[in-house]
Amino acid sequence: MATDVPVRTDEPTDEPSDEPTRASRPEHGHRDDRGRAQAQVDVAALRAVLDGRYAEVRDRVRDQLTEHAGVLEEAETLGTTEYRDRVRDLVVEMAGTGQAGLGFPTEHGGAADIGASLAAFETLAFGDLSVLVKVGVQFGLFGGAVLQLGTQRHHDRYLSDIVSGRLLGCFAMTETGHGSNVQALGTVATYDPAAGEFVITSTRPDAWKDYIGNAAAHGEIAVVFARLVVGGDDRGVHALLVPIRVDGEPAPGVTIEDDGPKMGLNGVDNGRLWFDEVRVPREALLDRFAQVTAEGDYVSDIENPDRRFFTMLGTLVQGRACVGGAGLSAAKVAITIAVKYALRRRQFEATSKDREDLLLDYGLHQRRLLPLLARTYALHCAQSVLVDEVHAVFSTDGTAPADADADAGADDELRRRELESRAAGTKALATWHATRTIQEAREACGGAGYLAVNRFAALKADTDVFTTFEGDNHVLLQLVAKGLLTAYSSDFEDLDQFGMVKFVAGLAVETVMERTAVHKVIERLRDVLPGGDDSDPESGLLDTDYQLAMYRFREEHTLGGVARRLKRGLDRSMEPGEVFSRVQDHVIAAARAHVERLVLEAFAEQVRSQPDGDLRDALGLLLDLHALSGLEADRAWFMEHGRLSSQRSKAISREVGRLCRRLRPLAGDMVDAFGVPHALLRSPDLVGPA
Amino acid sequence: MATDVPVRTDEPTDEPSDEPTRASRPEHGHRDDRGRAQAQVDVAALRAVLDGRYAEVRDRVRDQLTEHAGVLEEAETLGTTEYRDRVRDLVVEMAGTGQAGLGFPTEHGGAADIGASLAAFETLAFGDLSVLVKVGVQFGLFGGAVLQLGTQRHHDRYLSDIVSGRLLGCFAMTETGHGSNVQALGTVATYDPAAGEFVITSTRPDAWKDYIGNAAAHGEIAVVFARLVVGGDDRGVHALLVPIRVDGEPAPGVTIEDDGPKMGLNGVDNGRLWFDEVRVPREALLDRFAQVTAEGDYVSDIENPDRRFFTMLGTLVQGRACVGGAGLSAAKVAITIAVKYALRRRQFEATSKDREDLLLDYGLHQRRLLPLLARTYALHCAQSVLVDEVHAVFSTDGTAPADADADAGADDELRRRELESRAAGTKALATWHATRTIQEAREACGGAGYLAVNRFAALKADTDVFTTFEGDNHVLLQLVAKGLLTAYSSDFEDLDQFGMVKFVAGLAVETVMERTAVHKVIERLRDVLPGGDDSDPESGLLDTDYQLAMYRFREEHTLGGVARRLKRGLDRSMEPGEVFSRVQDHVIAAARAHVERLVLEAFAEQVRSQPDGDLRDALGLLLDLHALSGLEADRAWFMEHGRLSSQRSKAISREVGRLCRRLRPLAGDMVDAFGVPHALLRSPDLVGPA
Repeated sequence: MATDVPVRTDEPTDEPSDEPTRASRPEHGHRDDRGRAQAQVDVAALRAVLDGRYAEVRDRVRDQLTEHAGVLEEAETLGTTEYRDRVRDLVVEMAGTGQAGLGFPTEHGGAADIGASLAAFETLAFGDLSVLVKVGVQFGLFGGAVLQLGTQRHHDRYLSDIVSGRLLGCFAMTETGHGSNVQALGTVATYDPAAGEFVITSTRPDAWKDYIGNAAAHGEIAVVFARLVVGGDDRGVHALLVPIRVDGEPAPGVTIEDDGPKMGLNGVDNGRLWFDEVRVPREALLDRFAQVTAEGDYVSDIENPDRRFFTMLGTLVQGRACVGGAGLSAAKVAITIAVKYALRRRQFEATSKDREDLLLDYGLHQRRLLPLLARTYALHCAQSVLVDEVHAVFSTDGTAPADADADAGADDELRRRELESRAAGTKALATWHATRTIQEAREACGGAGYLAVNRFAALKADTDVFTTFEGDNHVLLQLVAKGLLTAYSSDFEDLDQFGMVKFVAGLAVETVMERTAVHKVIERLRDVLPGGDDSDPESGLLDTDYQLAMYRFREEHTLGGVARRLKRGLDRSMEPGEVFSRVQDHVIAAARAHVERLVLEAFAEQVRSQPDGDLRDALGLLLDLHALSGLEADRAWFMEHGRLSSQRSKAISREVGRLCRRLRPLAGDMVDAFGVPHALLRSPDLVGPA
Repeated sequence: MATDVPVRTDEPTDEPSDEPTRASRPEHGHRDDRGRAQAQVDVAALRAVLDGRYAEVRDRVRDQLTEHAGVLEEAETLGTTEYRDRVRDLVVEMAGTGQAGLGFPTEHGGAADIGASLAAFETLAFGDLSVLVKVGVQFGLFGGAVLQLGTQRHHDRYLSDIVSGRLLGCFAMTETGHGSNVQALGTVATYDPAAGEFVITSTRPDAWKDYIGNAAAHGEIAVVFARLVVGGDDRGVHALLVPIRVDGEPAPGVTIEDDGPKMGLNGVDNGRLWFDEVRVPREALLDRFAQVTAEGDYVSDIENPDRRFFTMLGTLVQGRACVGGAGLSAAKVAITIAVKYALRRRQFEATSKDREDLLLDYGLHQRRLLPLLARTYALHCAQSVLVDEVHAVFSTDGTAPADADADAGADDELRRRELESRAAGTKALATWHATRTIQEAREACGGAGYLAVNRFAALKADTDVFTTFEGDNHVLLQLVAKGLLTAYSSDFEDLDQFGMVKFVAGLAVETVMERTAVHKVIERLRDVLPGGDDSDPESGLLDTDYQLAMYRFREEHTLGGVARRLKRGLDRSMEPGEVFSRVQDHVIAAARAHVERLVLEAFAEQVRSQPDGDLRDALGLLLDLHALSGLEADRAWFMEHGRLSSQRSKAISREVGRLCRRLRPLAGDMVDAFGVPHALLRSPDLVGPA
């Protein structure tokens, strides 16, 4: 990344003085305080579009959150222990209503509705995020691992207690020494056939499990990821159920340490775990994908150990979908507060000597907030597509991807890998967007934004780690790039760049180039703009097909470039690691360009699917603003690659400004449509009465 | 601002395999763990360059901070009241050593050395930032106002107690209703000639003083900014000394409310103040620039009320210099931790199958951290220039700007306004840089960065408000732009855009254009690159004159464009407010371009002033990286304005990557040269032993 936000300057423009305030839509009769016609959106209808098929689930969660809104203040006033206990009690209480376990089988107290569970989780992120993360640890990670990696025996024994919140547990994967590189774990589970037990030990000084939610105080049992050693053979990473706490005390051989104060999420009891010859019965192995017989024979339907490992990890894709959705909800809270404030707060006399102007009447303020609002809508649509896909892939038997078994068809396999890629990429973009939106919204509320009562303190602190957990965003984008470069032909989670470089280098560059189809995209651009982009710099800017073709061109061209550079480096006998290091930011850019295209497509499809009318027009403005501000942000690249003249580049910036002005009268309605319950906004002095 | 960080992709490059690891410098004999020659910097010498003439002062503060490093942990463990008291005790203890009041006259316990006081404050920001801000409130804002706005009577009565920390006070300017628009305050001080007293009242519902440091618990007296009404005439905003607390209880007529929990800085007791007919004697008026006689006559040597007001505010320029410097120090702490971690932490096997690579060997990681490191150096140099200038302007009589009096020469007046502009602009860029650097450094440390023990939690939370207090950054940049557009011919702090638009529109555009001298800069660019930038896209990239000419071109061209657009808007009879709103982001961009040029000049001058040798070469690499990554970030603008071909634009990105690789072996030494005491880094698992 370069050193600063680009200094963007519009050229002197020929702004027409009769510029319309809104899209081509009929008047609604509202007038603003300058007497101008005020556009309007049907908030309820827009919210129904956003809430989609899970509207009822979302509303139930909204009601629950409103009921418990007091926890937002308790997060500031309670001591750590009390706050943790309060959060645990809330999680257990919510579990009691059935809202937390919607994704589990009905026979264990769930609703067997994975999409509903993701929608509920996303909505829960309007509230206190310690509650959210504790729910995620308990039902998503811990419960999810038992469900996805375990078999009937584990389900029958544990799931009802997990879904009801009677048994709290941990998901112990990450080790201090190995952040995102899970295959290199230093925790080892050795099978002792004489006793019929696994012996679990942290084998290296840096092999403790770290940042484990529920570990420091409340968890009784943990899903522990360890390298399995059977008959002297290392079989790679597997998961086992290990009791870590008995009657509130650490189990024998288990050492527990509190992670101590964190930047945020201090209602979650994160901790560290060490294992010193901890013995668990053979049945503790979560054995869906591999089994160990009593005699000590290792059996698995999946022969390739890497493939086995990544199949296990692949079942955890829901976690990434959850984090991305939660980040988006936090961004919605932040932008809602900032827009409402900007529609109440007056500052300086700009328009007349008599009255200060509303913040949102300032061009700069529009520029700061409205593209973020548009992008929030875009990512919401992308998240919805992701949730639908997770639901479809994981719903076949209610517990697992339809295609996880060894005999799954190639199409299912491909679909699963594409889903993993989509989840990873959406998570990265959504969580970065959350960090950025919350920061901008805070600054846009000035000093008031710094007071805890106005929510930004918690939003910032609690969401900061979203860009890191469930996979560091940069690592996730590398995975996305790998899927693109290899056409998803190898297992998705294999993070080894060494192998990736070799793999890509082994392809004929022409293969990648052919697949990327740059030339077809260029033709498409020519079709959309028959006169070329020099003829009329404004033409086609608001044409969704043009916008999509530009996004796709960037994706294809960047990807082809990565392949060429990797290949060329190896042709010159550079070390693969050195080649990768130099091409790495290009790799990330390719992944990003891909996910940006998916996001734009999702938003465009949502708009297309609306019937003609006000709502569609309003969404269309947001779509244009999102698409064009994305092009604007990367206009240097498009100019460098001959797809944008300097005149057209400036025209895009002008159009972004114009779209901001057209959206300004709709902004209040557009944040209301997110449906963040008023009690959760807090910020009484910023947002005013409900 | 557009919606996302640009997706930057290098083109396939012809990286030479024999690329030198360092600048043209002799070998030092060190070898890294791959056996490559390892470059080296003389850390002590580099630190001496950075510390400059205040090295001794800085070292004393470093020692004090190390002694009290425990407060960093206490900030997490103490309750609010205890933490506040602890911070107060530390501030009073530091005051006792004389470190806090260096800028005050010697007869009141100071050292009459303003530059030293700024350097001490900047260094203090390596430690707990509540301590820093409380020092700033007490000695900079409160003490500074008594010193700068008061007269001998006030100095004799209060300064010794203030400097020693025996009398803690507040600086009560900001009101909830009016953030940065100080002239519109709703607190009124009416002179009652019968009693010889001022009667102070909060006249409007939203006229309470807010976010006032020292107000909630420890302050006994406040400098209160209020509109002065004498004989029925409103004389504009003046400052008075008002006791707010007597024996620990609110003084009669004073209502105090705690601001409650904040995002950070919770060791500072911020609060709100309401005044209901609070009476203070006539002598309470800080009367350096205006007096009220016992009979109720208002007297001032400065006739124009706006000018009087801005003269008062101008004396407070030191506060902005302080905040910018503090932000930079916080950024230094963050980048130090992240670089040290990246030189210890291994992740994934990229280079070979046997050993994971150091994070800083990854190209992307270099790209993320090293341009920020270079920019930190650049801003450090800009801050040094600012401090020297503040020192020079304010040191004439030890208390005030040499030219503040009504008979000051025009040159002095101009110098003072330019200083105010420089302070505002440097503060804006330095504090945004702090926010960005701390965030990137946190993410670069992964999950570990989220633990409070590793400092990022406090750094993020405590510095977040730096972009807002002592002037919102966007408002400050508007001030900078105003100075540029009006050639500093009007008072600097006048924030009224209405007036600014009118003023600029009243100028002949040619006047502005002539002053901006775009054509001279273009000639200069031609001189530097005789063949034009198409002939050889690499030529001149590492030529400081070329870099500076590019920065200056952007500044001049952007500024001229603003003038043209403002003028054109009014020529078309648009409302001035509407014109301003549309041009506002262009205004901000012009200011930014100006300050960026000042920063680059300051860094270039620092490098030029070094004798030939390793140190100069190393600094030269940082200078090149800073200059080119700045051009890279804004390359779209340069392409749009015909100053960069697409080939040359790509060459800049390649060169940035190359500079990162050349700097990588020096990075550890370069953060060590900041001299952040090891105890203040905390982060034992990230940075290792001292």
